Amino acid sequence: MDIAALRSAHPDHWSKATAIRALTLDAVAAANSGHSGMPMGMADVATVLFGKHLKFDASAPLWHDRDRFILSAGHGSMLLYSLLHLTGYEDFPLEQIRNFRQLGSRTAGHPENFLAKAIETTTGPLGQGIANSVGFAIAEEALRARFGKKLVDHHTYVIAGDGCLMEGVSQEAIALAGRQQLSKLIVFWDNNNITIDGEVGLADRTDQVARFQASGWDVQEIDGHDPEAIDAAITRAKKGTRPQMIACKTHIALGHAAQDTAKGHGALTDADQLAAAKEAYGWTTGPFEVPAEVKSAWEEIGRRGTEDRYAWEGRLADVSDRKRAEFERTMAGEAPKKLTSVIRALKKQAAEARHKVATRKASEMVLEVVNPVMPETMGGSADLTGSNNTKTGDLGIFDIDSRDGRFVHYGIREHGMAAAMNGMALHGGLRPYSGTFMCFTDYARPAMRLSALMQQPVVYVMTHDSIGLGEDGPTHQPVEHLAISRATPNTLVFRPADVVETAEAWELALTQGGTPSVLSLTRQGVPAVRQQHKAKNLTEQGAYVLADAEAGKRQVILIATGSEVSLAMEARATLEAEGIGTRVVSMPCMELFAAQPEAYRKRVLPAGPVRIGVEAGVRMGWDRWLLGERGREAKAAFVGMSSFGASAPAEVLFEHFGITAEGVVQAAKDLL
Amino acid sequence: MDIAALRSAHPDHWSKATAIRALTLDAVAAANSGHSGMPMGMADVATVLFGKHLKFDASAPLWHDRDRFILSAGHGSMLLYSLLHLTGYEDFPLEQIRNFRQLGSRTAGHPENFLAKAIETTTGPLGQGIANSVGFAIAEEALRARFGKKLVDHHTYVIAGDGCLMEGVSQEAIALAGRQQLSKLIVFWDNNNITIDGEVGLADRTDQVARFQASGWDVQEIDGHDPEAIDAAITRAKKGTRPQMIACKTHIALGHAAQDTAKGHGALTDADQLAAAKEAYGWTTGPFEVPAEVKSAWEEIGRRGTEDRYAWEGRLADVSDRKRAEFERTMAGEAPKKLTSVIRALKKQAAEARHKVATRKASEMVLEVVNPVMPETMGGSADLTGSNNTKTGDLGIFDIDSRDGRFVHYGIREHGMAAAMNGMALHGGLRPYSGTFMCFTDYARPAMRLSALMQQPVVYVMTHDSIGLGEDGPTHQPVEHLAISRATPNTLVFRPADVVETAEAWELALTQGGTPSVLSLTRQGVPAVRQQHKAKNLTEQGAYVLADAEAGKRQVILIATGSEVSLAMEARATLEAEGIGTRVVSMPCMELFAAQPEAYRKRVLPAGPVRIGVEAGVRMGWDRWLLGERGREAKAAFVGMSSFGASAPAEVLFEHFGITAEGVVQAAKDLL
Repeated sequence: MDIAALRSAHPDHWSKATAIRALTLDAVAAANSGHSGMPMGMADVATVLFGKHLKFDASAPLWHDRDRFILSAGHGSMLLYSLLHLTGYEDFPLEQIRNFRQLGSRTAGHPENFLAKAIETTTGPLGQGIANSVGFAIAEEALRARFGKKLVDHHTYVIAGDGCLMEGVSQEAIALAGRQQLSKLIVFWDNNNITIDGEVGLADRTDQVARFQASGWDVQEIDGHDPEAIDAAITRAKKGTRPQMIACKTHIALGHAAQDTAKGHGALTDADQLAAAKEAYGWTTGPFEVPAEVKSAWEEIGRRGTEDRYAWEGRLADVSDRKRAEFERTMAGEAPKKLTSVIRALKKQAAEARHKVATRKASEMVLEVVNPVMPETMGGSADLTGSNNTKTGDLGIFDIDSRDGRFVHYGIREHGMAAAMNGMALHGGLRPYSGTFMCFTDYARPAMRLSALMQQPVVYVMTHDSIGLGEDGPTHQPVEHLAISRATPNTLVFRPADVVETAEAWELALTQGGTPSVLSLTRQGVPAVRQQHKAKNLTEQGAYVLADAEAGKRQVILIATGSEVSLAMEARATLEAEGIGTRVVSMPCMELFAAQPEAYRKRVLPAGPVRIGVEAGVRMGWDRWLLGERGREAKAAFVGMSSFGASAPAEVLFEHFGITAEGVVQAAKDLL
Repeated sequence: MDIAALRSAHPDHWSKATAIRALTLDAVAAANSGHSGMPMGMADVATVLFGKHLKFDASAPLWHDRDRFILSAGHGSMLLYSLLHLTGYEDFPLEQIRNFRQLGSRTAGHPENFLAKAIETTTGPLGQGIANSVGFAIAEEALRARFGKKLVDHHTYVIAGDGCLMEGVSQEAIALAGRQQLSKLIVFWDNNNITIDGEVGLADRTDQVARFQASGWDVQEIDGHDPEAIDAAITRAKKGTRPQMIACKTHIALGHAAQDTAKGHGALTDADQLAAAKEAYGWTTGPFEVPAEVKSAWEEIGRRGTEDRYAWEGRLADVSDRKRAEFERTMAGEAPKKLTSVIRALKKQAAEARHKVATRKASEMVLEVVNPVMPETMGGSADLTGSNNTKTGDLGIFDIDSRDGRFVHYGIREHGMAAAMNGMALHGGLRPYSGTFMCFTDYARPAMRLSALMQQPVVYVMTHDSIGLGEDGPTHQPVEHLAISRATPNTLVFRPADVVETAEAWELALTQGGTPSVLSLTRQGVPAVRQQHKAKNLTEQGAYVLADAEAGKRQVILIATGSEVSLAMEARATLEAEGIGTRVVSMPCMELFAAQPEAYRKRVLPAGPVRIGVEAGVRMGWDRWLLGERGREAKAAFVGMSSFGASAPAEVLFEHFGITAEGVVQAAKDLL
């Protein structure tokens, strides 16, 4: 590239863009770690976007109607941090840039949404940002439909790299966005032709322009270093009626010796080369020094949206008190007051009716009472609507001509679905839940981990949760998936036993502020085990005594979850009949039980009696409760799965794998 | 559809295709479960493919040079089972069709490769089959390059549905196949416009033809019920120089009342409708009855390839004894005799040199000696070649003009990579291994589960296996991923501590017949802990005593893996210095330890001393060793992670999260 020509053609633009490049070089060099080339390559696009188009106000990072900016190519985090620092975000003083990638700083190796208000989403695992962005754009459409254009009218901008576009989840995102004609979604493809291993052509020769067009996107192709072309492309993209991709031909590590090479992708720390690059840029200040006039120009950009924000605040003040309160409640993610009462009413009715239904059906019963009082829920399914029971009568379908619909047909795209739900939750104003089979937790897994890491209260409705699904066989039968979800930090895994517990689990899931929930639900019918009405949410304690032995006669404690609780109750009946005092503990949520005071945990699981865990999954994760965390608490056994399942009717399988009341009785007797 | 017109236009074809439809209807009705519509819709394509093109011999299902047929839309399993029964495969007598979806039958709900020789791969989780097929096609190219066209020259045919094409992994597969110009891969898209939720348009409007073309495929569009068009398309596809997609416009549940509806996707069990469909077909025999002349025509098809097979066997007999022996060894998946000796030599050298290297580097050292003696290995990386250390000097790059290359640039496609490796292993003749970061186990997860279920000895080289990777932060730092891999049945998870253990782990991984391996390897350097040379592979026992206390003085057992073994050794030094007798157990593979005789396990972990587990991951999975399976064995604690990681230099993080020798010492003292 002719750097001199770039400098002279647009000197004001150049100095602003180069501030990003210089800060990136300095921060990566100081950390001796990070990715220099991407921010250097995309600095021009970002400068024009922030300088002329992005609706934001650096003094109000949480302004609800701001445009969202998502750096899907998260390894280029210094691009984002430079912008946040330069435009004057309070959270990003120079000190943060100096402490790039150090413990406790907000400038982590990859952008982490929980470290600063101005970071919209955590990126780094490639493809997640672009897949989140579909959820952001859906949220904007849905909220605009609900609250009107005066309160909600913004764009979602994304920078995605070649890595994002190679990951399969990008196809799920692109196809879903295209299907929904999300015209306020604008993606910049950083077309620099370089990945870690070398030129993109080593692994990919896809015509990305044709690929996006095949899924219904408008595409423009521009020189990503020409500020006028960038400006014109964004201007045009904002007027489109379909999602917009702007293919930006760029040079990774522009102006550095490593330009256009795989080396340029990594940390450019060589002092001489760094100095040479700065010299070529005409950048004469010392490390981390931005000339005052450049900083001031950037800060002016940071204030560019202030008037807009005031106007918006005026519009918010003008709406009815009721509407404003509802808007604010919704954006704050607070559950409506009515939630508790509808849940309680359902529990009372269910305890009386003693429904024998599948817990997936129980979940639908809950949603039928919840959705009408919680207009912020956004349901969906990955093409298993009738099986996941996630669509209730009043929802309507979210579609191009019905943005007020509250059910998304995500298609056979579990990963894209989960990532989109993350985007909705991050945007705020929606409470997304959606379903697939528990076994396909596998497909959604990268995004489910990010729900937990990003502290987003997404609800995963995972039905068909064991061999109890029957004939579909081992590819569809989860055995390790409860363990997988439970192994993940900051995740609540609920496996409710009946309608009452399912209602309690939903209440907890819908009132979480910063924790996702996995609801593990049966395909097959299960008896009611909570037959007496209690207003109190017992699931909140994670585990509780469902049935007990006579005082002083307790020899056995059976601990079970979900469909195996009723089986434990059967086993208890047999044991008690033989004079073996038996307690049954229902444990719908291990994580919540772990969070109880030790005294409560000891009351539920006293040392002494033998313990049997019963769950149609692998044992991993159970020993803490069976054996006690420090050991020596009890003799114990587990009745569950130790292999993959098989294809046969459900009742045949439970018998075949020995998950029966008789099996539990025998296990208890063996230990006594 | 005008069924009568179809019948009369090609009566011989019609009766053969209708045998598939009738068997499907009968089997699904008998099972009262399954998917009728897809086999009914694709019966014509399958009939022409098997009847005129597929190179196979029903009497020799494992003939190495057969064409491979992959039913990616695995829910349509009755299509495959019907074909296998009709063409006379010994494993598929009528009894199997009658027992569709019953315990112990080979006709499981979804095709399971381990239930019958003729089932090439397990499908059902959508997108997996088409992604496997890329591996099948790569294997064919690689083996043709190695053994010549006389021994290896066959096609890979795939039937994929809309669900397969919506899953993101399909994009990874399509793009990789296109990049590699895998011209012997022919995919039929069952373009029936129906998914479980309804018409495809509910969730997707992607122009699939344009999408495939964008990734370098040739595409033909045909009427999937016109046998002449099908024949012509296959004939043309076989001559292509790029991967081939044939878009087949079909009617799901052809000729049934549920034709072209979502209902047609499921189990069509209504007796009257079933009878009406058969009547329209002109099918007059009873349930499960195929007219003798139709069965006989199909059986002739089953013998169509016999001559070809004889000719191939003749060619095999003609090659040199040495080449034939090598071909047979390779196809049987037997490790070469030299493997043990090169591993032993490396161990000896490493024990003497006491290298302090990262275990990812140790893995490269192993591969440098293994790859030259094991020409069937096929390495790769998901765009982290230099980080995963999976490419050795002699491999060469597998590419369009270098099919003898043994390193695949998979691109940023962990999922597609894992699925392709499954395909290579299933094909036979290659031993695939490849790398990404341990954290991105998440992306590869659905295919990793299938490696285990399908009993394929794929090797996953997962580097950067803890917070020890440092600044990249929590999105890149695995904490729950060892637990996830260990929770999966039939998976060996190795976390070696140094060069010697890494060599032992590789030896075990490369000699597995039916179990995949996950190698969890460090980014950071670790000291040699095995400093005395032993020819015996100690890792084979899963865990062993690395250092012990003086007889009678043992108070503490430290159990550690990988990078934490040296830390346990440090802690032991401190404890011993204070008079606290301490044993260190290195536990590189929990699964192998679990498989040891109880006497050995008790010798390594005797009851009595307190136990501390040390691993920079979550505790889940450890309690069995810390507390004993039945409990009451020992008091125990765990030093590891209980949250996500953070972005900072590695040594800062180990300190921050308390995973230090001092932390281990303190934990031991707390218990004593």
